[in-house]
Amino acid sequence: MTAGAPRRMRLGMLIGSVGNHQGAWRRPGSRVEEITSLDLYTDLARWAEAAKLDALFIADGLTLETSRIKAGPFGHLEPITLLSALAGRTERIGFIGSISTTFTEPYNLARQMASLDHISGGRAAWNIVTSAWGEVNFGGRPLPSHAERYARAEEFVEVVTKLWDSWSDDAIVADRAGGTYARPEQVQRIDHVGPHFHVEGPLNVPRSPQGRPVLVQAGSSPDGKAFAARHAEVVFTAQQTPEDSRDFYRDLKARVAAAGRDPEKVLILPGVSPIVAPTETEARALAKELRELINVEIGLERLQKQLGGVDLSGLDLDGTIPPEILPPVETVQGRQSRYGVFKELAVTEGYSIRRLIEMEVSSSGHWVPVGAPEQIADLLTERFTGGGSDGFVLLPSYLPEGVRLLTDAVVPILRDRGLFRRDYEGATLRENLGLDRPSVRR
Amino acid sequence: MTAGAPRRMRLGMLIGSVGNHQGAWRRPGSRVEEITSLDLYTDLARWAEAAKLDALFIADGLTLETSRIKAGPFGHLEPITLLSALAGRTERIGFIGSISTTFTEPYNLARQMASLDHISGGRAAWNIVTSAWGEVNFGGRPLPSHAERYARAEEFVEVVTKLWDSWSDDAIVADRAGGTYARPEQVQRIDHVGPHFHVEGPLNVPRSPQGRPVLVQAGSSPDGKAFAARHAEVVFTAQQTPEDSRDFYRDLKARVAAAGRDPEKVLILPGVSPIVAPTETEARALAKELRELINVEIGLERLQKQLGGVDLSGLDLDGTIPPEILPPVETVQGRQSRYGVFKELAVTEGYSIRRLIEMEVSSSGHWVPVGAPEQIADLLTERFTGGGSDGFVLLPSYLPEGVRLLTDAVVPILRDRGLFRRDYEGATLRENLGLDRPSVRR
Repeated sequence: MTAGAPRRMRLGMLIGSVGNHQGAWRRPGSRVEEITSLDLYTDLARWAEAAKLDALFIADGLTLETSRIKAGPFGHLEPITLLSALAGRTERIGFIGSISTTFTEPYNLARQMASLDHISGGRAAWNIVTSAWGEVNFGGRPLPSHAERYARAEEFVEVVTKLWDSWSDDAIVADRAGGTYARPEQVQRIDHVGPHFHVEGPLNVPRSPQGRPVLVQAGSSPDGKAFAARHAEVVFTAQQTPEDSRDFYRDLKARVAAAGRDPEKVLILPGVSPIVAPTETEARALAKELRELINVEIGLERLQKQLGGVDLSGLDLDGTIPPEILPPVETVQGRQSRYGVFKELAVTEGYSIRRLIEMEVSSSGHWVPVGAPEQIADLLTERFTGGGSDGFVLLPSYLPEGVRLLTDAVVPILRDRGLFRRDYEGATLRENLGLDRPSVRR
Repeated sequence: MTAGAPRRMRLGMLIGSVGNHQGAWRRPGSRVEEITSLDLYTDLARWAEAAKLDALFIADGLTLETSRIKAGPFGHLEPITLLSALAGRTERIGFIGSISTTFTEPYNLARQMASLDHISGGRAAWNIVTSAWGEVNFGGRPLPSHAERYARAEEFVEVVTKLWDSWSDDAIVADRAGGTYARPEQVQRIDHVGPHFHVEGPLNVPRSPQGRPVLVQAGSSPDGKAFAARHAEVVFTAQQTPEDSRDFYRDLKARVAAAGRDPEKVLILPGVSPIVAPTETEARALAKELRELINVEIGLERLQKQLGGVDLSGLDLDGTIPPEILPPVETVQGRQSRYGVFKELAVTEGYSIRRLIEMEVSSSGHWVPVGAPEQIADLLTERFTGGGSDGFVLLPSYLPEGVRLLTDAVVPILRDRGLFRRDYEGATLRENLGLDRPSVRR
């Protein structure tokens, strides 16, 4: 950042099914019939790119619960395939794909991500997830504990980084006359031997435009924050209130500094799922309409899963959860930090079960401001300038119009305030995010 | 096929680096500088599509030998990412991606292939490979034996097929008013428990346009042929002579029938890497030019590896290989059938080491006819009508012009003879190949 230049927001957009709200698919014009069609996602990517957003973000999961698909789409295109296809149909927007370190192999992941970075001309990012669910489809053994998954993730990232660094930037010479394509001494084995992985290397993909795809991380548990402090360049997180946002922001930036890294090179982007309409009255009506489209029974199942498997059957939906049935945060093995958010709202804030269900199915625990574009822009500005974020990951409540209201109504206000770019600064995602291109480390 | 309609060739095109000949990158105009650029492959895919070829085929490997990259590109884009990107830039051509059953997980593969099938509107095919190399990057344990790899592949394909069948074709109802997105009873767990895999399912991707992506297989060893007879819908193979082609064709079709399947629904496509130029004289000159671009030292390394690791150092390159140093075919654990091809040429036909090197680096043992377009078309016609194939996988010797000579000079002759289509018959790869869309089997 140039000294004196205004600090600018980074904005990503997370696409889940046809909207992040469970009832979104039921709205007219939801294009739910196109949920596996590339053309739908191409439209979304191009709208986001026209608005100069930094990146499109695809969440992921490795299971499907058949009970849930009655209430709405839950089963979608795999991130690497979808993002690769979108890379061929866009020019500048970045792509963040979620891929598990628990249920993949580092050599396969390093190749696919490096290939996506080549195909997109330097627009790839990997959201490193350790997977809270998935073991039933990968061997049937119990899910490794939270700590074990993070230990594997730590070594996984080490191997992937070494593989991305196994080719020097200038390894390829392509000397036709002399017959030398690449200099073998510039392409080195990594000979990694660790508790989880033995990988000899080198990668069989040349070094990619960004050197390494951008590393994104979304876990906010103590293990997750420690991991982020060491590795993440973008942190996706969920905080409901300005205070929680500021606390998280300060804490993580301090951890980054303590890990010997530059806090300005780690961007903290909380999720936000605005319910926005041309006027506040319309936005409130929309929120009500979406609430009425919720399948409460399936929502209760999701909430119970979110709360570590606690049994809420028989309880009054309009009452609160008895605190004693909620386990301590540190004992929960999956989505631990998100559990903490819900537990706090249930216990400290006294949210009813119904309200918690609404939170879960509308935004999976992300912040859901309701209002006209100007009001949403005010709230985002306040949180950004108040030290709570470096920008946001926008989670459109519903598709496709929900995207247009963000890109065409909210973002232009932020731009007019000098808080968001008028055009992309560079060709690669790193350049647009203001992140350095890593040099080869051996 | 309509009764009385002429039998038509199926034609695929395999893309490897910037040509299948080791020296191809050294030719002027080879676009070797674009080897990781989507635009190069987009051009190739669009040319192949304009010629109405059935499919683009991407071979793959899971290692990189640094010694080899001096002599030419050997490290390329990963198939799933590249094909997904090309799917977004083409309309009708099919895509065959090679993915290993030894070094991936069936749930991940089933998702990526089903997603590619959705993204491409039904143009995905999986070339099932068991990987002769790769163990050094996946745990460092010795490569499982040929038989063990095929046993895993057998169960792998079973799991993947079950996952693709886990959603009924009509599972999604998208009833907005009633609030039912999909019928849970139409999406079933597979509950697979076997020696290699425990996979509960269902897949978290809805059933894809082709029902199942097309299954392709390229192993021609006894294990490979037995596997193909049970599962393959397209068989990619390598035979040098018309006699070998006919023998392989008859043998495999008989095995398919013995396995209770319709031999007409298993297409046998030998590879062919023509060296083609406007006149025979120019083609011979081109063959000589390519020969002179070979790095013999690296070629010898590749040949030794192809021959099961035999040591040829110290032997006269213009002499033959002493037969006693070549191990029996059935003891070779990787690329067994291709080894058989080379051994026969070395022992029975008395090929010199230099000629075997030329074969290895020009086409990896595939048939390499040399001539003008009419001559090449004659040779392909003869092998096709003579009972040696259902079509071919074209391996262009060099890119990009080598592709144009095939698509714009050779293919039109085949078309004029009524042996190849004037336009695509259908929207999906299955429709174009004349293969049935599988129904859900549970």
